[in-house]
Amino acid sequence: MESIIYLIPLLGLSALFYSVVKQSWISKQSSGNEKMVKISKYIRDGAIAFLKTEYKVLLWFIIIVAILLGFANEGNTDSSWLISVSFIVGALCSGLAGYLGMIAATKANVRTTEAARKGLGPALEIAFSGGSIMGMNVVGLGVLGLSSLFIIYSNLDWDIFKVINVLSGFSLGASSIALFARVGGGIYTKAADVGADLAGKVYEGIPEDDHRNPATIADNVGDNVGDVAGMGADLFESYVGAIVGTMVLGAVFVTPDVPELKLEAVILPLLLAGIGIVLSIIGSLFVKVKEGGNPQKALNTGEFGAAGLMVVASYFIITTVLPETWEYNGFTYTSLNVFFSTIIGLAAGTLIGLITEYFTGTEYKPVHNIAKQSVTGSATTIIAGLGVGMNSTALPVIIIAASIIGAFEFANLYGIAIAALGMLSTTGIQLAVDAYGPISDNAGGIAEMAELPSEVRGRTDKLDAVGNTTAAIGKGFAIGSAALTALALFSAFMLQAEISVIDLSKPIIMGGLFIGAMLPFLFSSLAMGAVGRAAKEMILEVGRQFREIKGLREGTAEAEYSKCVAISTRAAIKEMILPGLLALIVPVIIGFASKEMLAGLLAGVTASGVLMAIFQSNAGGAWDNAKKLIEGNFEIDGTVYGKGSEPHKASVVGDTVGDPFKDTSGPSLNILIKLMSVVSLVIAPLIK
Amino acid sequence: MESIIYLIPLLGLSALFYSVVKQSWISKQSSGNEKMVKISKYIRDGAIAFLKTEYKVLLWFIIIVAILLGFANEGNTDSSWLISVSFIVGALCSGLAGYLGMIAATKANVRTTEAARKGLGPALEIAFSGGSIMGMNVVGLGVLGLSSLFIIYSNLDWDIFKVINVLSGFSLGASSIALFARVGGGIYTKAADVGADLAGKVYEGIPEDDHRNPATIADNVGDNVGDVAGMGADLFESYVGAIVGTMVLGAVFVTPDVPELKLEAVILPLLLAGIGIVLSIIGSLFVKVKEGGNPQKALNTGEFGAAGLMVVASYFIITTVLPETWEYNGFTYTSLNVFFSTIIGLAAGTLIGLITEYFTGTEYKPVHNIAKQSVTGSATTIIAGLGVGMNSTALPVIIIAASIIGAFEFANLYGIAIAALGMLSTTGIQLAVDAYGPISDNAGGIAEMAELPSEVRGRTDKLDAVGNTTAAIGKGFAIGSAALTALALFSAFMLQAEISVIDLSKPIIMGGLFIGAMLPFLFSSLAMGAVGRAAKEMILEVGRQFREIKGLREGTAEAEYSKCVAISTRAAIKEMILPGLLALIVPVIIGFASKEMLAGLLAGVTASGVLMAIFQSNAGGAWDNAKKLIEGNFEIDGTVYGKGSEPHKASVVGDTVGDPFKDTSGPSLNILIKLMSVVSLVIAPLIK
Repeated sequence: MESIIYLIPLLGLSALFYSVVKQSWISKQSSGNEKMVKISKYIRDGAIAFLKTEYKVLLWFIIIVAILLGFANEGNTDSSWLISVSFIVGALCSGLAGYLGMIAATKANVRTTEAARKGLGPALEIAFSGGSIMGMNVVGLGVLGLSSLFIIYSNLDWDIFKVINVLSGFSLGASSIALFARVGGGIYTKAADVGADLAGKVYEGIPEDDHRNPATIADNVGDNVGDVAGMGADLFESYVGAIVGTMVLGAVFVTPDVPELKLEAVILPLLLAGIGIVLSIIGSLFVKVKEGGNPQKALNTGEFGAAGLMVVASYFIITTVLPETWEYNGFTYTSLNVFFSTIIGLAAGTLIGLITEYFTGTEYKPVHNIAKQSVTGSATTIIAGLGVGMNSTALPVIIIAASIIGAFEFANLYGIAIAALGMLSTTGIQLAVDAYGPISDNAGGIAEMAELPSEVRGRTDKLDAVGNTTAAIGKGFAIGSAALTALALFSAFMLQAEISVIDLSKPIIMGGLFIGAMLPFLFSSLAMGAVGRAAKEMILEVGRQFREIKGLREGTAEAEYSKCVAISTRAAIKEMILPGLLALIVPVIIGFASKEMLAGLLAGVTASGVLMAIFQSNAGGAWDNAKKLIEGNFEIDGTVYGKGSEPHKASVVGDTVGDPFKDTSGPSLNILIKLMSVVSLVIAPLIK
Repeated sequence: MESIIYLIPLLGLSALFYSVVKQSWISKQSSGNEKMVKISKYIRDGAIAFLKTEYKVLLWFIIIVAILLGFANEGNTDSSWLISVSFIVGALCSGLAGYLGMIAATKANVRTTEAARKGLGPALEIAFSGGSIMGMNVVGLGVLGLSSLFIIYSNLDWDIFKVINVLSGFSLGASSIALFARVGGGIYTKAADVGADLAGKVYEGIPEDDHRNPATIADNVGDNVGDVAGMGADLFESYVGAIVGTMVLGAVFVTPDVPELKLEAVILPLLLAGIGIVLSIIGSLFVKVKEGGNPQKALNTGEFGAAGLMVVASYFIITTVLPETWEYNGFTYTSLNVFFSTIIGLAAGTLIGLITEYFTGTEYKPVHNIAKQSVTGSATTIIAGLGVGMNSTALPVIIIAASIIGAFEFANLYGIAIAALGMLSTTGIQLAVDAYGPISDNAGGIAEMAELPSEVRGRTDKLDAVGNTTAAIGKGFAIGSAALTALALFSAFMLQAEISVIDLSKPIIMGGLFIGAMLPFLFSSLAMGAVGRAAKEMILEVGRQFREIKGLREGTAEAEYSKCVAISTRAAIKEMILPGLLALIVPVIIGFASKEMLAGLLAGVTASGVLMAIFQSNAGGAWDNAKKLIEGNFEIDGTVYGKGSEPHKASVVGDTVGDPFKDTSGPSLNILIKLMSVVSLVIAPLIK
């Protein structure tokens, strides 16, 4: 059974192979006319320049942390420097996944625009292929990296806990790069977005996509570095975190007390992830649409098809790999119950996704209420949106609590970990659908800037509009799995730090809980402050260009796009440092002061982080869609309001406030909670 | 030593006596001209009508809960119906304190206006006297009620735990009325405020204080029912909660294992509170200002004088009442360390207050930054304010965590409880200063509506503007003491429910933690939704009056103020029910399902509630002052902006969003966290 581990890297490679094939196919498609090529080159160059700058800074970070990790572990074990190797490989894989995905996206965007001149079907194919390259790179590098390191370390004749501890460095590398990428990308994209939007309004009444707006290229670059590269790194870390968390908790069974099991429970997560890759590829093949067809249906077929197959496959894999029943520490496990835990995870993720869809979708009451409140101005729009965001936390949190308790009933801590993995096993196709969104969005932007016929923009808008439900479910999976993975890592930390009880009635733990719960607030404020400052700088720069460049207003001279790109880049790099370090350093300081306080801190940061993430993401999503609702002409108290009306202006304010909520601070919190747990897990042997 | 308990009710009576004297003095002052009398009558009638309606609804609530409490405890002990008696007395005292304070405030407001025609000194004296009536009623009824019931119950030959358990019904009564009063009053005042403000803008460009604005009376009534009666009930429950929490934790020493102590540690909190009353009265006598003098200095002298005297008095009381040293459960207590715990509480409260002042004061960077962001519109103003609010949670939470740990080090759980009490022992004068604010505010409103010379408004504005620092410190005490009291009650709950360890690594407790942390979000969304709905109704009614009442626009016909008052009243009563019941019922349901889950829930609600309270209060305060800063002409990037400028409009949006934050949902959360703990404490014997 254990020899199956040698097959797993091949499954990872298959994903990379798929992405190479798709990449070369996309490159062969037409990029359209000269203007389109020029615009897309601006966007790609800006995006690559940003990633290069970002990675240069992160390289130093990686080197320093790798050295610190090595020295810190030196006295500890002979494995000291290998944990640094894991960390470096994890960080590089994360960076590579983001980079390759973004390259694909910046190639796919203009080709999607060009294909949209012909029809919906070809455009969908290119946009989705672009997204699937990102998806496959993430899962491919994740599975390949983790399984190869695992194979190498298992052959070193170490005990399994040491193997896993050293392997967790990979997860630390992935998580820390993810946090910087998400925060940096998030600041970049929203500074550019808010800046382009407000600058156009403040100075000229020029829309954000207008080619005369100097911030427009930065805005489009932002979609790529934030929504594509940032999201890729984000899901890479979720995926890796869920796998590693399950591996740690599966390692406890490797003891003579459990004669039925050797490494099966440790290998199982890798195997499930590997099979998930194959099923994601199969699902991707079903994403096709004919002219006049419904792109939503195509995406649903692919994603739900893959997920459905995964449920069946999981059943067979889990019941085959694991023994029918075994005992450990007084708990009776059965393979069937482990399978049920994955079902709990899938059900919880889907439900949270549907609730997200309800609170943020244009068809439902919450968004309608926000739109209605826009009649009395921006203040009531904001109050309504904040209310919707806060309200939307209730059911997801109840579902998370229920699934923690349920998964634990079925299969103890291993159940919680594998429930998280259940949600993420088809990340390959989920991420393809997620990344497809910004590619279509970019394609629309390019159509606008290149002044193509309005039917082209119409088609890209249609592409962009679908996939909301699938994206919402993706978000549900992201939040649900973040909570469960954080708890799995938390339990793994307790195990490795040799903490058996975290007694909340001890003041030191309660103190840790308070401070932990505070961190997401502090972190969010740093991220939002950064967006505000950078957006303001952007607005001032746009103003300067309109004053100083003659003919810009009339469209006869070209804007200095690169200056705006530079502002976003500089601000993002500068401002990502503090929140990133906060997440890394706080657990270390608290952990060395008191490992029990650290345990309290992790519980606090997880609970409050999940809440703040849901609150901010959903408030932002709801404001965004309330604006879109009014733009599509919406009747309030007998009057129909549309673009340019007073309620529309109020809804734009809501949308702008929601931007950093839903694309900077909100999604970063998912990473924050896991990163803090991984840091704790990695330092656990040092503080026990 | 124990006979000292019979003196304590007298200290409570002395406060009530002081307030009667002040009340009759105020009644003798002139109410000004006919128009002023008429306006003030409108306000008083509206306020009394609201309280009457509210109390009618709450009467049913009190009766039902009293019956349920009695039946629930029937099988349990022979004390069953006395807990209902405690509950009823607590509820009545809370209601009475709010009512009497509000009557005083509605008498003081117009007399302050009239006195302001003569000068600043007489106006201050009346406004502060009005506030001190509220303050003294709160502390007088609290100490009188608790100490009388304690004397009665102690003579029933019960063991001390039973006495305290039955007495905790008083705290439950106080807390539940406080929550309804805070939420109802908060909804009332902000619906009227937001409604008056926006209605004036939407329809007529008429300021909110203009006598032609039909919502203006409702707005002024709101200040009284929300900021005076609501705040009074709020502080009544904090005060009572801190005393009861300390009594419960002091009761553990009443055991033959601690021969040095009988009831001293139980009586100590009542005694400290009683002495605090006397010192508050003395402090109040120093609040005087001559024409041209500085009212701020007068308030500071009174409040800090009383607090300083209290520190000295506490030292002597604690070291006299308690034995020098004793042992319990392996911990060595000393009276000196108990005193140090109170100092920790005072220091923490003061520091939190100063931090609050920094984040919300017009002189400091955070508010300046918000004002600066208003140049680029309301969206950036909102983003900046949310950022400031979130950022402002960091230091207070660290201070709270440190004082939990510190007070525990000094005197274990008793230390945490008495630290909270330390902050609240001079509530009498603190509340006088707090209530003085809305009275001055009302006085200004009356001056405006009665069209008095602008110098009168100038003087009332000056009165209103001072006391910010003292009020901020009051807020710091409220938040700090809420956190510590909630933890003290939480420990008391564990004791009575016989829970010795709350192990966070158990999923049921982690699930409880998540759900608990979510409740403040849900609660806030309900409160904000209520304000939004009621404000909208108000705006529509104002529009109807402007359409239908001829001459209203020109000022020749009078507005139908009572219709707006009725809208606010109806909305507040209707909308306070759901959030109020949520706070009461959730702990009962969870508690009967699993007492351990309830423990997790309480920890979650406390941590997240404290954070959300600080976030919302400070964001609201900062927006409010950013607006005021601009109204006083503020230079941004070389241009001076003032009233009516674009940045001013943006800052008004911030202020309006902040209104429900800082006056409805934010302060209610302080009560929420304590109410849930008290409910748990009361049901503890039933679920153990």
